[in-house]
Amino acid sequence: MLIVKKFGGSSVADRERIFNVARRCVGDYKAGNDVVVVLSAMGDTTDDLLDLAKSINPDAPKREMDMLLTTGEQVSVALMAMAFATMGIPAISLNAFQVAMHTTSTYSNARLKRIDSERIRHELDARKIVIVTGFQGINKYDDYTTLGRGGSDTTAVALAAALHADACEIYTDVEGVYTADPRKVPDARKLSEITYDEMLEFATLGAQVLHNRSVEMAKKYGVQLVVRSSLSDAEGTIVKEETNVEKMLISGVAADKNATRISLVGLKDEPGVAFKLFNLLAKNNINVDVILQSIGRDGTKDISFTVDRDVAKDAVRLLEANQARLTFQKISFKENVAKVSIVGAGMATNPGVAAKMFEALYNVGINIKMISTSEIRISVLIEEEEVDAAVRAIHDAFQLGK
Amino acid sequence: MLIVKKFGGSSVADRERIFNVARRCVGDYKAGNDVVVVLSAMGDTTDDLLDLAKSINPDAPKREMDMLLTTGEQVSVALMAMAFATMGIPAISLNAFQVAMHTTSTYSNARLKRIDSERIRHELDARKIVIVTGFQGINKYDDYTTLGRGGSDTTAVALAAALHADACEIYTDVEGVYTADPRKVPDARKLSEITYDEMLEFATLGAQVLHNRSVEMAKKYGVQLVVRSSLSDAEGTIVKEETNVEKMLISGVAADKNATRISLVGLKDEPGVAFKLFNLLAKNNINVDVILQSIGRDGTKDISFTVDRDVAKDAVRLLEANQARLTFQKISFKENVAKVSIVGAGMATNPGVAAKMFEALYNVGINIKMISTSEIRISVLIEEEEVDAAVRAIHDAFQLGK
Repeated sequence: MLIVKKFGGSSVADRERIFNVARRCVGDYKAGNDVVVVLSAMGDTTDDLLDLAKSINPDAPKREMDMLLTTGEQVSVALMAMAFATMGIPAISLNAFQVAMHTTSTYSNARLKRIDSERIRHELDARKIVIVTGFQGINKYDDYTTLGRGGSDTTAVALAAALHADACEIYTDVEGVYTADPRKVPDARKLSEITYDEMLEFATLGAQVLHNRSVEMAKKYGVQLVVRSSLSDAEGTIVKEETNVEKMLISGVAADKNATRISLVGLKDEPGVAFKLFNLLAKNNINVDVILQSIGRDGTKDISFTVDRDVAKDAVRLLEANQARLTFQKISFKENVAKVSIVGAGMATNPGVAAKMFEALYNVGINIKMISTSEIRISVLIEEEEVDAAVRAIHDAFQLGK
Repeated sequence: MLIVKKFGGSSVADRERIFNVARRCVGDYKAGNDVVVVLSAMGDTTDDLLDLAKSINPDAPKREMDMLLTTGEQVSVALMAMAFATMGIPAISLNAFQVAMHTTSTYSNARLKRIDSERIRHELDARKIVIVTGFQGINKYDDYTTLGRGGSDTTAVALAAALHADACEIYTDVEGVYTADPRKVPDARKLSEITYDEMLEFATLGAQVLHNRSVEMAKKYGVQLVVRSSLSDAEGTIVKEETNVEKMLISGVAADKNATRISLVGLKDEPGVAFKLFNLLAKNNINVDVILQSIGRDGTKDISFTVDRDVAKDAVRLLEANQARLTFQKISFKENVAKVSIVGAGMATNPGVAAKMFEALYNVGINIKMISTSEIRISVLIEEEEVDAAVRAIHDAFQLGK
């Protein structure tokens, strides 16, 4: 078996944890498997490097930021190889140049294009554990690139695909994917399996277990993932195309508190208005989440949407500067809103799901401000302070607990 | 003009110093020159990484040590590029992979073999300042190597040779090469020029301005060096094949306190004894400096030599373990010895130099324990506590002061 294992920055934050990771890999290696380990930078290394860069140039060239940040994972993999050596296990560390991890040219947010598997194969054939730097690649100019948030997950999935790995294990600080946040909902249940599509909706909805891009890639190449804890031996959650268990109506409830609602009132009711609005936001790298359009008074329309809280002020400023072109009369924004969503592959064929969710919220007196749905997801916008109560009510209504 | 400038770790230890280096380069750049900057790792970075490695594996694989240590210079060059960006100067950082800095395979002490100048030329043609990681290379396996002590000087000289640079400036924390250590000899004089050979003898003798390997390479490829201060605008010392100034009798006095004398008494007076002894030491990576052989009693001979203090105990243990084969009767060692040397290209044709040096020492009552000479150097071994007095006496006798 060829197994790819990915460990995040907190799993390699110090000497003790590095050896903990090494021990978790040695078992599989000694059982005769080929083992590829993907690592992020140690603990706060990336943040420290970012601070250092900021002190030199608050608006540093992205190419140089990537040159700087990629040293973080290189330190991790070298130290991990030394830890294996201490344990008498043959191992070798490789960075993006050595693997030849080709990406697009975009610095700080590149996408993987192609991975040369030759060097890794060669080292695995020599019965070495191969430790690869996550998060980083090289572009056609022979410059370092980084893959953006959650990039190490993507590296692991891409390596698993390129090497035709038999397993791809993503180690995190939680034991798997839960029906709801276990810190908020005491009887939340760990899912044994979940589909790629459900996982994608979960990732979007703020359950930060796996990053979207890695799940998309896993889906594209059919790489079966296991999400599990680096600190316990508990079985994790398998992420795959189709779950073998009886199709669940819904697989979980997720909450995202990091939202601000922006409302534009009295836009002209003519073609192209929505296009101009969202094109302007996209061009300025402002991601829009839930969108609601409604008929306004006197032949106008209103559009409301949510954005991440940290870009809300920029978005409002941008819109105000373009008021004439966008044709709105008034702009308002509300910060204390949150999104609660249910996700489930079985939802598509069960028309009563939305009604059941809304009923659960009604029963605990929670007012819904906006609604948005996809084939396997229903999201509602509510007051931020009502989120925990909403998640528990929905979790109970669908009997997701243990 | 194409100018290569090398700055050591203390010159880039923090934000302020990084900008100081950047300012020192911008003048040459704005005057229309092509500028290549070679940097070491910031301040204590390398030591910190060594400590980190030691905590994981006190005997870490050298390949992984190099993988770890090379991150240090990569951080320096990226930050320097950001500093230039802050100042509005186009610049780009390149590491050993990107330059293609080919070395031998030996980790931790590799030798440069070949440098591809294409990428650097390309960036210089685009009117960018090119910032290159010192100290590091890649070997035929596509693995990182490091060049050992003083490696960044070697990188700078090699780049100057490969790029046919018009100047190669080595910036240090002293203003140049002096006739003696200015902290010990108040009227020590800065030399305006010195030959490669003299500089080589100086480097060997503990005047840690330039590392030997870089001077050897400069001599081999005819790269004229300038040693100057990163903190002042003072003219430095030029290192070249022949000095234009009237050939000086001697160019300076150097002291090396880091010596231990080992004496083997009563070796058989037969061929191969010295060979066996020094071959054994060389095989165990113990460098021997001054050697003295004398006739002993009863058809035996005695051999004394000096080694660096930190390997003295290992050397003695090694010799004792081989006593029978090496045929000596007794071994002794003395720690508090030091070497004082005079260096000068003019010495070869002036027979009275040695006598004058010995006379100077005699006049201040210093006993000489061993003597060793080369064409352009005379070294004597004396008691360690007499070193400063010896250097001053010799400096005065040859009238080297201002």
